[in-house]
Amino acid sequence: MASTDNETDLIALIAANQLQQPDTDNLILGIGDDAAIIRVSENYDLVSCTDTLVAGVHFPLQTSAYDIGWKSLAVNISDLAAMAATPRFAQLALTLPTADINWLREFLAGWQALASEYNIGLIGGDTTRGPLSITVQAMGEIPQGQALLRGRAKLGDVLVVSGDLGSAARALQQLQAGEAMDSELALELNRPQPRVALGQALHGLASSAIDLSDGLALDAQRLMAGSGLGAKIQLQQLPLKSTLAALSQSQRYSLAVSGGDDYELLFTLPAELQNRLAEISSAANISLTVIGEIQANPVVELLADDGGLFTPSFKAYEHFNENR
Amino acid sequence: MASTDNETDLIALIAANQLQQPDTDNLILGIGDDAAIIRVSENYDLVSCTDTLVAGVHFPLQTSAYDIGWKSLAVNISDLAAMAATPRFAQLALTLPTADINWLREFLAGWQALASEYNIGLIGGDTTRGPLSITVQAMGEIPQGQALLRGRAKLGDVLVVSGDLGSAARALQQLQAGEAMDSELALELNRPQPRVALGQALHGLASSAIDLSDGLALDAQRLMAGSGLGAKIQLQQLPLKSTLAALSQSQRYSLAVSGGDDYELLFTLPAELQNRLAEISSAANISLTVIGEIQANPVVELLADDGGLFTPSFKAYEHFNENR
Repeated sequence: MASTDNETDLIALIAANQLQQPDTDNLILGIGDDAAIIRVSENYDLVSCTDTLVAGVHFPLQTSAYDIGWKSLAVNISDLAAMAATPRFAQLALTLPTADINWLREFLAGWQALASEYNIGLIGGDTTRGPLSITVQAMGEIPQGQALLRGRAKLGDVLVVSGDLGSAARALQQLQAGEAMDSELALELNRPQPRVALGQALHGLASSAIDLSDGLALDAQRLMAGSGLGAKIQLQQLPLKSTLAALSQSQRYSLAVSGGDDYELLFTLPAELQNRLAEISSAANISLTVIGEIQANPVVELLADDGGLFTPSFKAYEHFNENR
Repeated sequence: MASTDNETDLIALIAANQLQQPDTDNLILGIGDDAAIIRVSENYDLVSCTDTLVAGVHFPLQTSAYDIGWKSLAVNISDLAAMAATPRFAQLALTLPTADINWLREFLAGWQALASEYNIGLIGGDTTRGPLSITVQAMGEIPQGQALLRGRAKLGDVLVVSGDLGSAARALQQLQAGEAMDSELALELNRPQPRVALGQALHGLASSAIDLSDGLALDAQRLMAGSGLGAKIQLQQLPLKSTLAALSQSQRYSLAVSGGDDYELLFTLPAELQNRLAEISSAANISLTVIGEIQANPVVELLADDGGLFTPSFKAYEHFNENR
């Protein structure tokens, strides 16, 4: 539904002006008909996810169109990465308050910068009028039976995280306090790098994985859900950028466990495979840090430096919590 | 990204409480991980589309949650129907102003009423806080090479439409005028029936097809785009409900060609196959009407009863037209 003359212009811009179609035999029919047609490679499965970004909820209102374009694709590719899938295609449902072609060009430039890295084709979408909101649906492929799932951790596994934590949340905190964002932190907030190579490098090694979007504490619970097990996380071991060193320990830890928007992978690995971490890190070009271990007690425990349980100074982001 | 404690409740409700997973070997992994995994049947392609419904733009604010649930799925299934695909799966990105569980239950009841008809599994989604908006992504399957496309009409084809036109637009008109909606018309507005069986029955017969969402005039242009041809539509032949008879001819025709929200199929058929229409109509359980023919002049002409060109009294819906 929902295309019109003006909208057709937007779709034409999307289809023709900026976004080349991917170079793949898997795309049978792209933008321009009622639906797109894709062919899944033989002996592969299709992996599909969708995420919405609402202005003022998932990104600050002052975020540039370029960064919104990048991020709306990145958060979806991050979900595919956590399944060890290879990203292939995306659909874009864009709700805009006005038909602002310049905004759209910038948005698409940011989208395409990331899409080009992974040869992701934009194969369909919808543009509608309304409060600014972007829903992306991303599709990838995975050899049958090789997806990396949640809930499969085993006793004897260690818990590993990629990159560093709390950087995006700290940038947001600076912004909300009216301070200038540290440029390195702002990049983490606005242009997260999905860990696609890492997800694939974990095949046959990691027992389970999830991407970190809502903060380590909550996402670690989700990673463990269904496994019947829990995890102990040593906060002292959390990888944090040096720019966070000026904050109090409680602030640093709170940002890292509750901050959200990290888009790193959290995964479980049999302890005897820890010696493979350097090799995986090198293959995926991202640092990896062991931050804890799996335990029989089916809860996620955050352990402070003194061994006591840590209570974050703020909770994980909750979209339906009106008080936040 | 974007799940939280409250949101987890919504997802849990979606996953467990109302919506059974479809009975199919094609679903490898449903709701509950970073992404869903599906297996496309051998020698089939995947057909995928996405459409957004914004409150107050795509449905009146007073629309019931049940009807919004139905319609948000129906408009996407309609796109799959126009490709002759068999619907299989859907993902739901739901942006809600508040976490209203009763509203969500009603929404899901409406969704499921339609999903059950076609054994469509809800395999993933996202719930976020923001102005009410629903983006659905639907996936279907089609035997390789058998999709029904736009832009493939031939000289000598006739133009055929299913069902009747302008009913949903008339209901909306009544609502906007503060009148009580005719109940039969209201049903067309709020619970469109995607023409899945018709799309499939057209295989090997129709040369091209599109679903009608933005009005016959605009969608007929889209159907012809790329064919290098045009169409003549005889307005006298348009199928209209008898409840529209009280309106002036100009009003009736305007509703039928510009009204939108019909979700019927418009297709082209070689003239020599017109004798198959009764059989197709019977197989798909929907009336079919020849409303015109393909012409070499590459424009869509709307011909009034006197043979002159008809000008609708209002234009097709335009999402980015602030004056509407």
